[in-house]
This record gives sequence, structure tokens and C-alpha cells, in this order.
Amino acid sequence: MKIPFNNIFLTGKEEEYIKNALNSGRLSGNNTFGNKVIDLMKKKHSFNEVFLTPSGTAALEMGALLANISHGDEVIIPSYTFSSTVNAIVIFGAIPVFCEIDEKTMNIDVTKIESLITKKTKMIIPIDYAGISCEIDKIMEIANRYDIIVMQDSAQSYGAYYNKQACGSQAHLATFSFHETKNFCAGEGGALIVNKPEWIERAHFIQEKGTDRSLVIKGLKSKYHWVDKGSSYLLSELNSAMLLAQLENEDLIKSKREILTRRYNDLFSKYARVKRMSFPDNCSTNHHAFWVIFDTIYNQELFISMLKEYDIYAYIGYIPLHSSLKGKTYGYEKTSLPLTEDLASKLVRLPFYTGINEEELEYCISTMKKVLDNIYLEK
Amino acid sequence: MKIPFNNIFLTGKEEEYIKNALNSGRLSGNNTFGNKVIDLMKKKHSFNEVFLTPSGTAALEMGALLANISHGDEVIIPSYTFSSTVNAIVIFGAIPVFCEIDEKTMNIDVTKIESLITKKTKMIIPIDYAGISCEIDKIMEIANRYDIIVMQDSAQSYGAYYNKQACGSQAHLATFSFHETKNFCAGEGGALIVNKPEWIERAHFIQEKGTDRSLVIKGLKSKYHWVDKGSSYLLSELNSAMLLAQLENEDLIKSKREILTRRYNDLFSKYARVKRMSFPDNCSTNHHAFWVIFDTIYNQELFISMLKEYDIYAYIGYIPLHSSLKGKTYGYEKTSLPLTEDLASKLVRLPFYTGINEEELEYCISTMKKVLDNIYLEK
Repeated sequence: MKIPFNNIFLTGKEEEYIKNALNSGRLSGNNTFGNKVIDLMKKKHSFNEVFLTPSGTAALEMGALLANISHGDEVIIPSYTFSSTVNAIVIFGAIPVFCEIDEKTMNIDVTKIESLITKKTKMIIPIDYAGISCEIDKIMEIANRYDIIVMQDSAQSYGAYYNKQACGSQAHLATFSFHETKNFCAGEGGALIVNKPEWIERAHFIQEKGTDRSLVIKGLKSKYHWVDKGSSYLLSELNSAMLLAQLENEDLIKSKREILTRRYNDLFSKYARVKRMSFPDNCSTNHHAFWVIFDTIYNQELFISMLKEYDIYAYIGYIPLHSSLKGKTYGYEKTSLPLTEDLASKLVRLPFYTGINEEELEYCISTMKKVLDNIYLEK
Repeated sequence: MKIPFNNIFLTGKEEEYIKNALNSGRLSGNNTFGNKVIDLMKKKHSFNEVFLTPSGTAALEMGALLANISHGDEVIIPSYTFSSTVNAIVIFGAIPVFCEIDEKTMNIDVTKIESLITKKTKMIIPIDYAGISCEIDKIMEIANRYDIIVMQDSAQSYGAYYNKQACGSQAHLATFSFHETKNFCAGEGGALIVNKPEWIERAHFIQEKGTDRSLVIKGLKSKYHWVDKGSSYLLSELNSAMLLAQLENEDLIKSKREILTRRYNDLFSKYARVKRMSFPDNCSTNHHAFWVIFDTIYNQELFISMLKEYDIYAYIGYIPLHSSLKGKTYGYEKTSLPLTEDLASKLVRLPFYTGINEEELEYCISTMKKVLDNIYLEK
């Protein structure tokens, strides 16, 4: 039996919806299915405005353009994140300023943000690792005090909540990913949430190749012009149709994934030398992932490699950005952020996918128990 | 009977291929269908390397990143083009330098390029309007003399040739669009062609979020790192599956579209006061579009509005970039490029789609004849 790290879950409606899109005669972005997805997202989670994009990465870039991130600006980012978080500002010439993380959640350590703020700081991009929200209320308080934009990288947290509000609804800007590795899959896809109403018109320009085509569609103009910076941040109807089938089943998918969280949490609670992810009281997870941190790199590697022998695929976390090849070009060394470096080096992400069946789950849990007993009970 | 401006043509294989992709368990970019499309494109047109992207716009941006276009660089671009051509460098802080066009093709006037070159000129982006190649040999000669990169925006010219070589195979970089308005539709989609072999490894990094994941996939490394600027320039398998069905029928699609070119050419040859697009001897078109230029703006507008009364949809061309709101911020005025301004203001693009049937075509041609006779024979 093979337990992959992740897997696409089909709800059963995908094929029908995609076929409908194919036969609709319109497959480019912001058409029938795209609009249905946007309506559903807004209704379910009270987002101010939603823009579907080709990827979570594209959503971050669109947000960076909307905030006019440019040459020489500084942006505060946790070092423990995916490269897209930082590339979205680096490609526009901005400078990343890496922040330490909180070991309970692996999210940005809010107590370390303020000391990194300078006159050049234009944005903070916290992430919601593994579907647990960053402390967005505290981040917004700091940002508003210094007049800094916050773009919450909620790539992993669609359907998660913080203080009973949906991730993505509290920052100035927020982004989601609907990559196949996420809870809800569009093939490739993402979304930018714009919670500042005064930015929405310009967001349409930026999404539509820097043109005012949105005004032509509304009948307010007869010809569209080049009016601003922009790109083509549109999601095809094929992908929106797929995504609609997934998001219509948000609660079902969440409940299926919840079982994995519970089983992993139970299992790892028995091994004191392995730390497991926290679920803070004010966070309601979307059950995106489960991670643990081993006591030593040796045991981390042993765990991963032993599982592999049983055809079970667990993975390491991110290589911290500050100590990556590109991060070093900004003057960072491994020792610049010691906590991030230490935690990341011993972290393991466990297999996690919606469609795991009872038999696979039992095999996965019992094998992990065997491996953990082997590592820890003999010593 | 309604004659739309364009329409998606389905070859009949799209549904099957998309279904196969859906059930393959992998829907993110550079998987089975993506690789099939890449192989087909390389085999058919001798491109050095192909990267499928979420759009033609994204392909231009990826090329700009690959060429390290950044703050303060100058890029020479014809003013008569779509906003994506220029946004792809503007978003990275580069300055557009607009060039006049050749009235026979509406492509960049190669005799006007050299006088625009300065020490800051890093790139030239010519386009292939309506499926007629720019004079890429002459542009390459100039560019190579000054050590400037050429990225050919072949959004409209997949399957067209210049001097018997495929558009996209001759410049350092070239881009295609597979938007639903193009000859071959992926829903949304595009491709970047990299003809400089020494740039290919880095192109993989840039496409894969600035990471060296491509080396991990090849087994050359065990963990991937952030190594460079980048984005997520990947096309989902859903869109690649669709595109494969289209590109497998390239010759069929071309032959169907050829009929439109012939009929429009015959029709307009009878009206001396309307100029029609040229087909230079060394250009072999992919029959993307057909355009005409009226003698006056009045007659242009009359033609479009009279056709509309018959439910036939013809459109204007581009609003020149230099005289658009954003273009003016770079110091241009309408009068800066008088020929472009004059031609663009009187141009009409005719309805053009692969699936037009005999009856629709007859209605379209006979109605246009009636309208043209009405405009020109009474005077």
C-alpha cells in the first residue's frame, strides 16, 4: 500500500462542470464559472472583493502591484515560507526583510516585527502555515500604526478562521492558492482578496492587462485604453469550473480532513520528544496539513527514510529563505535567524489528503507508531 | 444570423483529453499533457525550448525576467500593440520607448529602430500583427550589432513563417498566446520560446517559483532551494490537454481559416479607397486575422456600425500605447507617432473564426459588400 504525500480529491461534479464550461463558448477568465466561484467565496466568507488568478503566486504579485511595491521598498516576510511569498516583491525590485517565527505555529513572530520596520517598509506579508492563521489582529495593529500595507499569504488557509473571522477577510489584501496540493484544487489557480474598497477599481485594471476593459464591460466607456501597470491575472473557465465543484463541497472536504488531524495529534501526543503543531484557541484550522518537529535532525531524517521503506511519503518543510542561495544575496547567513533555522531543519510534514480511506489511514498511523517506537523506545 | 468577432473552435478531442487529465491525479503544470504539447511544438516548428505559461502575458513577463529587465532599462516596442507587450517590462520598472510602424503590416518599422537605441536599451519587443511576422532577420541584425536582446511577441502568429522559418524560432526569446481569441485555444495559456541554450536552466528556475526544483526532479539534488527571482509560470494540465487537442489539428485549423483570408482579400480588392493588409512574399501567414484601413474615421465608424445592424461584429484595432493614459506618463503625445496614430484610428478588424460555416461566410461577405457599396459607390 502506498501513502503519497498528497493527492487530488474529486467531488464528482468536476467533469460535468468542465464540460459545461467547454461547451459554453467562453473559456477565458471572469466568465460564468469564475463569477460563480467569486459569489460563493464572498457569500461563504464575507470577503470584500475576490479576484481569481492563475495561481497563488500570481495573486501575491497582483497584490504587490496594487500596493505599488517597487524598487527599493522593504517588505517584512517570515523566512519560513515558500519562495513565492518573497518573489512576489523581489521581482519588482523590493528588498525582503526576514523575520523570525513563533515555534508553536511556525508563523511570523509578531513580537519581532516592530524592530524591523524602517522608513522604507511598505508591506508585511505574514503567512498562515499549515492552515493555522497568523496573529493577524496584532499584525494589523502594528501595520496601521506605521501606515504599512498587510498582505496575508493565506495560500494554505482557505476555510480557516481567526477570532471567528475567515482567513483572508482581515488584512488589507490576502491571497489563496488552489494548487493541486491545497485543500481545494483548480488545477493551477489562486485568488486575491481586496478588502480596501477604494482599491477595487484599480485591481480590475491590473488584472485586465492594465486596461480599463472593466469599464467597457460595464458600459461606462466604448473603447478600452492602457491606463496602468498590470498583467493577465485571470483564471480560465476550465479551472474555475473545477474549483466550483471543489468549493461547493468545502464542509465535506474539511470534515474528511479533520480525521487526519485528530489521528496524527493522538499519535504524536505519546512521544514527548517530538513537538507537534499547536492549535491556538482563537484559530480554527481548515485541516490543511500536519507537522511535527523532531528532537534531532538525525531522528527527523530517520523517520522520513524509514517511512519511505513502507511506501509512506513524509517530507521536510521549507528551506528557510534567508539561508537559501538567493536569500544570502541580501546579506543573510544561516545564523541570522537561529530559531527559524533550527526548527525548519527538524520539521516533518506528514502525508495529508482528503481522499485517504480507512485502510490507508490505519496503515499510515500504525506504521508511524512502529517507526516512532523504534526510534524512541529503544533509546 | 449573428456573426461574432471570434469564437472558439473545438476539434472534438478536447473533452476526452481533459477527462484524461482530470483522472490522471496530476493537474499542475509540466505534467503529461504539458509535456506532450511541448514535444509537439518543438517537433513541428524546431523551437529550441518551450515553456508553457498561464498566458501570453505571463510568457512575456517570464522572458523579461530571464533577460533581467529591471529598473531604468529601456525597451523598444511598437506603439501599435496590446498593453501586455509593454506591461511585461513596465511592471519591472523599465521604460518603454515607442517606435513607429510600417503601414503595410502594422508591425514595427525596422528603419526607425536604430535611432531609438541608447546605452540603456536592453531589449526590443517587435510583434507579429494579425499573424504576419515582423522583419525579424533585420531586427536581429540590428540587435546583435548593439548586443540587445530581442523578444518576439508572436501572440498572434503561432504557425506563421518568415523566410520559411516558424515565427518564434528566430529571436532570442519569443512568446505565443493561446487565449480563446487566438487560432489555438487553451482557455487561458501561452508559451515562452527560449532559443538561447545557455538560458534554459535558469528559465526552469524562473518558471518554478525561483527554485531549483527542476534539478530535484532530474535527481541532481535532494532538496530544492530559493535560488533566483521567479514566479509560477506554469500551465495546468486541464489547459494543456485542451491545447493538445487544438495543436494536433494545426493544419486543419489553418486550412479552414485560409478561406476567410481569401474571401476578405477578394472582397476588399474591389474598393480602392480601403487599404487592406499586405502579405509580403517572405511571410507565410497563419491566417490569424484580417484588417483593413478606411480612408476616413467617418467611414470606418460607419462600416462598423452598419455591420452591427446586420448582427455582424467588426472591431477597431489597438488604441496606440503612446497616446493612452499610461503612455502619456512617459512623455508621449498623440503627435509623437503620427503614422501610428493615423493608421490605428481608421483600422477595422473583421470577424474571423475557424468554425465559420458556408452560410455564415456568404452572409458576412455579401453584407459587407452591400455596406461598402453603400459607403463608396454613392459618393
